[in-house]
Amino acid sequence: MEKTLLELAELVGGQVVGDPGIRIKGLGTLETAREGQITFLANPRYAAKVADTRASAVVLASGTNPFGRNAIVVGNPYLAFAKLLTIFTTRPRVPRGIMPGAIIGEEVAIGEFASIHPGAVVGDRVVIGERVTLHPNVTLYDDVVLGDDVTLHSGVSVREGCRIGNRVIIHNGATIGSDGFGYAPDGAAYFKIPQIGIVIVEDDVEIGANSAVDRAALEATRVGRGTKIDNLVQVGHNCVIGEDCIIVGQAGIAGSTRLGKHVTLGGQVAIAGHLTIGDGAMISGKSGVMSDVAPGEVLSGIPAMPHQARLRSAAVFPHLPEMRKSLARMGIRMTKVEEHLESVSNVMPLPGQECAMARGYA
Amino acid sequence: MEKTLLELAELVGGQVVGDPGIRIKGLGTLETAREGQITFLANPRYAAKVADTRASAVVLASGTNPFGRNAIVVGNPYLAFAKLLTIFTTRPRVPRGIMPGAIIGEEVAIGEFASIHPGAVVGDRVVIGERVTLHPNVTLYDDVVLGDDVTLHSGVSVREGCRIGNRVIIHNGATIGSDGFGYAPDGAAYFKIPQIGIVIVEDDVEIGANSAVDRAALEATRVGRGTKIDNLVQVGHNCVIGEDCIIVGQAGIAGSTRLGKHVTLGGQVAIAGHLTIGDGAMISGKSGVMSDVAPGEVLSGIPAMPHQARLRSAAVFPHLPEMRKSLARMGIRMTKVEEHLESVSNVMPLPGQECAMARGYA
Amino acid sequence: MEKTLLELAELVGGQVVGDPGIRIKGLGTLETAREGQITFLANPRYAAKVADTRASAVVLASGTNPFGRNAIVVGNPYLAFAKLLTIFTTRPRVPRGIMPGAIIGEEVAIGEFASIHPGAVVGDRVVIGERVTLHPNVTLYDDVVLGDDVTLHSGVSVREGCRIGNRVIIHNGATIGSDGFGYAPDGAAYFKIPQIGIVIVEDDVEIGANSAVDRAALEATRVGRGTKIDNLVQVGHNCVIGEDCIIVGQAGIAGSTRLGKHVTLGGQVAIAGHLTIGDGAMISGKSGVMSDVAPGEVLSGIPAMPHQARLRSAAVFPHLPEMRKSLARMGIRMTKVEEHLESVSNVMPLPGQECAMARGYA
Repeated sequence: MEKTLLELAELVGGQVVGDPGIRIKGLGTLETAREGQITFLANPRYAAKVADTRASAVVLASGTNPFGRNAIVVGNPYLAFAKLLTIFTTRPRVPRGIMPGAIIGEEVAIGEFASIHPGAVVGDRVVIGERVTLHPNVTLYDDVVLGDDVTLHSGVSVREGCRIGNRVIIHNGATIGSDGFGYAPDGAAYFKIPQIGIVIVEDDVEIGANSAVDRAALEATRVGRGTKIDNLVQVGHNCVIGEDCIIVGQAGIAGSTRLGKHVTLGGQVAIAGHLTIGDGAMISGKSGVMSDVAPGEVLSGIPAMPHQARLRSAAVFPHLPEMRKSLARMGIRMTKVEEHLESVSNVMPLPGQECAMARGYA
Repeated sequence: MEKTLLELAELVGGQVVGDPGIRIKGLGTLETAREGQITFLANPRYAAKVADTRASAVVLASGTNPFGRNAIVVGNPYLAFAKLLTIFTTRPRVPRGIMPGAIIGEEVAIGEFASIHPGAVVGDRVVIGERVTLHPNVTLYDDVVLGDDVTLHSGVSVREGCRIGNRVIIHNGATIGSDGFGYAPDGAAYFKIPQIGIVIVEDDVEIGANSAVDRAALEATRVGRGTKIDNLVQVGHNCVIGEDCIIVGQAGIAGSTRLGKHVTLGGQVAIAGHLTIGDGAMISGKSGVMSDVAPGEVLSGIPAMPHQARLRSAAVFPHLPEMRKSLARMGIRMTKVEEHLESVSNVMPLPGQECAMARGYA
Repeated sequence: MEKTLLELAELVGGQVVGDPGIRIKGLGTLETAREGQITFLANPRYAAKVADTRASAVVLASGTNPFGRNAIVVGNPYLAFAKLLTIFTTRPRVPRGIMPGAIIGEEVAIGEFASIHPGAVVGDRVVIGERVTLHPNVTLYDDVVLGDDVTLHSGVSVREGCRIGNRVIIHNGATIGSDGFGYAPDGAAYFKIPQIGIVIVEDDVEIGANSAVDRAALEATRVGRGTKIDNLVQVGHNCVIGEDCIIVGQAGIAGSTRLGKHVTLGGQVAIAGHLTIGDGAMISGKSGVMSDVAPGEVLSGIPAMPHQARLRSAAVFPHLPEMRKSLARMGIRMTKVEEHLESVSNVMPLPGQECAMARGYA
């Protein structure tokens, strides 16, 4: 594929500096890009490299010196480059249809331009939108509903009745709609509570490899529009995750917890059940959240506390042994001082006392 | 389905208060239940809602005010409701037989009323009990044994020779019997130690989505009767897990560790290898256990310590910076005091000294 | 199978003590081994058991008393026993060929003696070496390359263009080459950055059940020769893992981090992104590493610090409440002392002052 600098500028919403007509065939980094390619400067620290790059054009933030190079000036060069990367690397999707070795149940509705690979198994009464790709060995249970432009990678399972929105991508081995972890103790053993709800995954969600989102006990577990979930993440039953959240690998959210919008959970974070995490909250990696989090809070630690304060406390942690020793020594020194003062106070002359004594002798 | 209040009371082992003949068609919460439905009061805090619910009957703990409603009185309303939910929501299982696209090995014995879905692959010499369901893309390696009423969800793998008890449910993508993580370092590289044992999963166990239970090096890894394992849990080789344990999502148990009965592991707990965890022990979420745990202990933290004590220590953690500062200040103040006493003690009159001096002047 | 003691000694590179001609049919532990079997002593503490074992021969470290038994003397008895276990338990592999129900794409090259099981799906232009086993429901995307003697267990997915070396074993449900977790925030939502790199898994690597290794954004994520990865491990995009590393269950490595050779990560360890972990570093279980680690360092904790120092600090943690109290008390005692000295210093006679006062009265 080949486009003019002007065409690319329009595609990323930027202004051309230099020759709008030059033709761009691909992209590379400031170091690796060759003639005919475009590169980008995201980090101002490397601004000098713009002068040396062999690229035919550079994507720059407004206000950056283009060193006389042909350039596209934008507000967010990193985002613009991601868009260019998409333009240059996305191959047109060729629908494969229902391939031999795929198994389709009864009363299934499949939209146009589907690719359903060998080993994919589609249950009864499933509804599949347009331009959907089911990779090999995907399993859709009965009554699943998939939107348009959905991609389910090999080994994904979507359990009975769950609903997946448009443009959702689910990576290999992820499970949507497994039973929530709910039991009623009868004193001796545990009685399984039927999990009869579903999972609703809204539009533009991405879910990572081998993650699991449990179905609700009643009603629905929900993953909000645009939320991105990494690999090996656990989402408990009846969780409601807001829009545009980022949930990093191996994080876990216990049942019935609600995340607002734009919440970020770092890797291996754990959130206890039945909590509310406010909009824009950020929980740093490996933290454990045991209580509600207000909007915009930045927390870390187990239990989680304000991140900056925790860094200060964590910096003291290595000094605990010396602190304990000096505290013990301090106690000994203090007692010595107190005992000394105790003893001398018996003899220490009170105000004017010497005089009295002296007078006696006079 | 429709049952009288009396029939339901007998099914859950409770007493009817009010009209035993009223007919119940379904269930709901105190807020959502409609006429013809039954609801329940588990939390006494909401007792007042019993008066207002539109439900035709209520499941109550003995001693609770029924506000004149038709009721079933039981010892454990939550458990009773779970049973009612099961009664009203469980659809009769319709065996599908060996469906087209399922692949069955040689010398396989399959009990009556099986449902073996497309893409399920059954190895040689496998023995399958009655009323077993193998969902699509399940894989049973050679010589696997499954009990009666087993349900294996899509993507489950059971490795060579492993044995699964009766009424076991294994959720999507879980792996039973993968090789234990055992190597003999030869100085440079690691030499793989053959893992020739198996996994034994006893009756009434449930294992969550994408969990992994490794086969033993020799002998067997064992999951005890009635134990419930959540999603993304790791059980190492040669572990022996007792009966009726609860192991919450993303917990990990290293090799050769033994759990007693009724042990509870919270989410993301890690238990080191070769340990013994006593009956009824509870380890709270995100804890790390590096030594044996006595029966009934309630631990948390990394390393795990008694839970209440840890909460007290964790409450002090945010104060560490101020503690360190005040400890430093204390040292300075102490030194000042000591130096002062040092100096004055040279001049401080000893008992009677003033008199002597005064006398001298007389 | 049956071998003479001499043959076994040569196979493990050891010397025979006693009768080199005795025939060995199998192995067991010091307690369980019977006549005709060989056992081993790895832990000197059990040396006395060598006298009592019913085994016909014992594998011993040089310098250990054989108590007059037939023995093989080696430098590393544990390693030698692992080799003997391999010799006696490994059954000859019987190639099954491409079995009915396996699906092979176009322009696929498959080496000799393959076993491709039912439900395995091989994409287009895939290259497969000799003696490769693909278990049921394995999925290879287009353009995958597998070396010789590779074993992929059921449910494994290898994504487009990824390369797997010789003698690699990947356990059930693991995913190689899922998209890295990369998005460009556009202010409101997240724009997906195409992940167009691959994963390269070098020779002799083993990867555990339900683990995930993400493909690179550009270039390659790499797992070095001989590295062993346990179950449920997450490896982020563009990570480079050195040779002969040990990565224990549920550990996670964020994007672009580099591990040297012989690095050990304990269970549930988290390593932040863009870090360098030096050769031979050891990170103990549940630790969180937020900065570079020098070669040979042994760290633990969150954030990770030198392991021994952390143990000392962790031992003080339970004493924090009492430390805080005694620090508060110390402040009160100190103030009391200071105030007392303050008051008495007004009246405390300065050198010779009493005399002056006395003289005044004289």
